[in-house]
Amino acid sequence: MSQNFHQNDQIASNPVSREGKSQMQSVPDPLTQDPLTQDPWDIAFDEAKDAAHRGEVPVGACIVSEGKIVARAGNRIIAARDPSAHAEMLAIRAAAQTLGSERLIGCDLYVTLEPCAMCAGAISLARLRRVYYAAPDLKGGAIDHGARIFSHPTCHHVPEVYGGIRESQSAELLRDFFKARRS
Amino acid sequence: MSQNFHQNDQIASNPVSREGKSQMQSVPDPLTQDPLTQDPWDIAFDEAKDAAHRGEVPVGACIVSEGKIVARAGNRIIAARDPSAHAEMLAIRAAAQTLGSERLIGCDLYVTLEPCAMCAGAISLARLRRVYYAAPDLKGGAIDHGARIFSHPTCHHVPEVYGGIRESQSAELLRDFFKARRS
Repeated sequence: MSQNFHQNDQIASNPVSREGKSQMQSVPDPLTQDPLTQDPWDIAFDEAKDAAHRGEVPVGACIVSEGKIVARAGNRIIAARDPSAHAEMLAIRAAAQTLGSERLIGCDLYVTLEPCAMCAGAISLARLRRVYYAAPDLKGGAIDHGARIFSHPTCHHVPEVYGGIRESQSAELLRDFFKARRS
Repeated sequence: MSQNFHQNDQIASNPVSREGKSQMQSVPDPLTQDPLTQDPWDIAFDEAKDAAHRGEVPVGACIVSEGKIVARAGNRIIAARDPSAHAEMLAIRAAAQTLGSERLIGCDLYVTLEPCAMCAGAISLARLRRVYYAAPDLKGGAIDHGARIFSHPTCHHVPEVYGGIRESQSAELLRDFFKARRS
């Protein structure tokens, strides 16, 4: 295993439950010293719900820099007629605009679903510090599944990754969305 | 090896040189039946040169649909302050706008450098039919190197891939660019 392999191992040894409403204290986070008025997870889930209302697969994301929310987005693939308009990609692009830099040094991404290969690649290119994701994606995910983007020695920037936070909330949102579409 | 593994094997058995100015006839291409007024490779290389003039890493791309150029772009990472503004990503997004669809069925991408993980992911999401790339990228490439995005069974759409076309022209452009930056 590469030395660069991301730090999900830390979660396995973390005694705190990976489920629940507020897990912000359970992982090392600078936000504990400078509390946000809004939980980044609540924002990411609000974005996911808004995406569902637009008929998009309910995935939401937000980016935090120095204790402040600098970007938030939900999937807009259909609305924007853009195959790259995943929540994470839109949040990364918005954060780069907000911060005036193509490198998001010290920034943390919260997303309700494990990022795909495209988004994981963008996360690395943007130099994000940490990725917190809710539900794992066995088919489309590319951090802990499939191409495992961050586990290759050629990956030039590997963020810390914490998966499975609020997993059941995200899984339920996705399940309800696809169930409603089938009926 | 996955059944879905892309078709670079065809190149190895192709008797035609992978170098040279016009290799358009050497790979199966619908364009031979409906010739373009401009060679997609010339457009991609023009975009790469324009990128270099802007101080961006010289990579250019264009997308062809039914014998017509529907999008062209060069790297704009610095100019757009966008870590995702790779030539391929911009071309994919522009093609989706032009064609009014987030799925680029039957479209072919020409790019002067092997796509990275982000771009390879976007290529798959956009359902591009074929990818022609010039120079391989041993460090950042993710088709024939690193994460090898299309070689995983979970990859939901695998395009045909033809690499090494006009390889030396692209390599020279990149070499000159980095040499000039160091001096």
